[in-house]
Amino acid sequence: MNMKQVKIFDTTLRDGEQGPGCQLTLNYKLEIAEKLDAMGVDVIEAGFPISSPGDFKAVTEVCKLVKKATVCALARANRKDIEQASSALVKAKVARIQLGIGTSDIHIKHKFNTTREVILAKAYEMVAYASDKCDEVQFFAEDAGRADNDFLVQMTNTVVEAGAKVVNLPDTNGFCTPFEYFEKIAYVNQNRREKENAILSVHCHNDLGMATANSIAGLMAGALQVEGTINGVGERAGNAALEEIILTLIVKENLGIATGIDPKYIVELSSMVERAMSNPVQANKAIVGKNAFAHSSGIHQDGVLKDRRNYEIIDPQIIGGKLPELFLSARSGRAALKDRLKSMKIDFPAEHFENIYNRFLVLADQKRLIEDNDLRSLI
Amino acid sequence: MNMKQVKIFDTTLRDGEQGPGCQLTLNYKLEIAEKLDAMGVDVIEAGFPISSPGDFKAVTEVCKLVKKATVCALARANRKDIEQASSALVKAKVARIQLGIGTSDIHIKHKFNTTREVILAKAYEMVAYASDKCDEVQFFAEDAGRADNDFLVQMTNTVVEAGAKVVNLPDTNGFCTPFEYFEKIAYVNQNRREKENAILSVHCHNDLGMATANSIAGLMAGALQVEGTINGVGERAGNAALEEIILTLIVKENLGIATGIDPKYIVELSSMVERAMSNPVQANKAIVGKNAFAHSSGIHQDGVLKDRRNYEIIDPQIIGGKLPELFLSARSGRAALKDRLKSMKIDFPAEHFENIYNRFLVLADQKRLIEDNDLRSLI
Repeated sequence: MNMKQVKIFDTTLRDGEQGPGCQLTLNYKLEIAEKLDAMGVDVIEAGFPISSPGDFKAVTEVCKLVKKATVCALARANRKDIEQASSALVKAKVARIQLGIGTSDIHIKHKFNTTREVILAKAYEMVAYASDKCDEVQFFAEDAGRADNDFLVQMTNTVVEAGAKVVNLPDTNGFCTPFEYFEKIAYVNQNRREKENAILSVHCHNDLGMATANSIAGLMAGALQVEGTINGVGERAGNAALEEIILTLIVKENLGIATGIDPKYIVELSSMVERAMSNPVQANKAIVGKNAFAHSSGIHQDGVLKDRRNYEIIDPQIIGGKLPELFLSARSGRAALKDRLKSMKIDFPAEHFENIYNRFLVLADQKRLIEDNDLRSLI
Repeated sequence: MNMKQVKIFDTTLRDGEQGPGCQLTLNYKLEIAEKLDAMGVDVIEAGFPISSPGDFKAVTEVCKLVKKATVCALARANRKDIEQASSALVKAKVARIQLGIGTSDIHIKHKFNTTREVILAKAYEMVAYASDKCDEVQFFAEDAGRADNDFLVQMTNTVVEAGAKVVNLPDTNGFCTPFEYFEKIAYVNQNRREKENAILSVHCHNDLGMATANSIAGLMAGALQVEGTINGVGERAGNAALEEIILTLIVKENLGIATGIDPKYIVELSSMVERAMSNPVQANKAIVGKNAFAHSSGIHQDGVLKDRRNYEIIDPQIIGGKLPELFLSARSGRAALKDRLKSMKIDFPAEHFENIYNRFLVLADQKRLIEDNDLRSLI
């Protein structure tokens, strides 16, 4: 199968860090950036230099550290922001400025109190200005998720003419279903001009829990870059979780989409970000939660003991994780109990098993998880 | 707009409780069931009676307590399981048994080591057996996400002929994209017989982070019941989170799908389940995470101060939550700082503001969140 190559854009250090209480120290930013670079992300968005002196410094230090990835810095659509971003990026191997402006009618009216024409002119002017100040300009059409699709085509043509190499059409407020977002990206991609000069990027938020599905929909519709954060951290309900997007592209080979990512760093990066942000990942978080690969019910444990493929679509070892445990609880069945007793090398007459199982259930109804020690005293 | 009514099936007490370490005491089960009933869920799956004496008792007690909802109990496709489920449901207003069997070729071969024909015959026999033992039978075609669509049509026809009123086509392993799951549900719905005698149900798992989007896709494709758990708890990465599905149907009116749910109980139910399972919800969890409606960056805070609609698609008050705070951090801008100082009634000469803002940023670079006390000492 001919695989389409797409770029992975990580914004853990910028949009991810915007989550309340998720602010990172300089040392943690550098540690995370180094690991993202090793994992093979194509672009690291390192910060928003105008926002504070600490963030400016973080961007400059990330530029010095990173070996392969493009380093990106955020700016609003004004000269001062762009100048600060450009100064912070001086040492980058490849320096990208991402600048943007609201494109939904809600933003144009209630945030800027202006017209579409003024917004288009401003976008053109600022992209042209930034193009001289870095290697490549990425434009974000803020709130594209709620923007008019024809206006997005117009905006895309305008900023590409001004020199943008990447046009990001974010679902800023997590408003779209995958069907709507697919249609939006496909429409803009089909109707824009100068396709050879710029690629489309997708950037989704998780307000309704659909950021990963929307990101995949955007790639299927023709985007060639996808943005997200480790653990899905970010403003409000967060950004699309990069680990979910990466694993979906690996598991769903039929999508025909490949990345340059080495997934073996995922578990390590997830713990690093969790620790650095003091922002715990929930047990049932997809891919990186502590229960993501655990089996507890009898039906599933029995199935997994017969053949892992019955209830596993991912081998956690490819993301640097361990093979899942079979936890023993009141929902476990005979197969899992037998398997555990065997692995503990506990011998007993076969005719006693039903009795042991029934006493196990009574204990398990009172205690959430049965440990090996509990089994020893029970026997 | 003519809205399509769909049923909400909650399985927090059954599939949700299967998550490792998530086992519930009887008292917690009853507290949660009562609140689910008040919220208006149509069906409460209360447990798997054969699995343990404690679970049998929980189902019987839930039946006595619940005022409106149908109560459902799980069974595998064998007589003993069905008999136990039936006994546990005696006091239900409306008693439903859910029973099922693997339908993917992987399950048929590697779990049962048999053929499709044997599986069909078994399903027919057990559904017919259960039909005499409760008000309604729901059949689940386990691992439907990876099953052949034509075989699912055959299975659906078979079990409906045997008396099933609901056919659940679960994506047991969280394997589908929304596009694949839509196609699957639409295909079965279009090609099945006796449509007037039974409805289709969707039940999705979150292994790749797409359970909510898949559930919505299934409803769009013609399913009339959707299954999930509060907080998305459940085996491995969990089930589809009911709060995300419910809010999507409210926010996306254009889908034309309505439920009988009163969303004002959502925040309360989420905390109840979190506490009862000792299973903390992460800060950036959609809808119910503590940051789900918080704004921290300057760009967003400024937009929200101008008009909440710029960055909010949901009013958290409809789910029983509070209006979001604007946290002050190094990513906050002048607008949020001014707003906070004003609400704290702190006066200062206007020409000092830039100096105050710069000192605020230096402090915020060192400290994650700036409290009112910090501002007082800074001024």
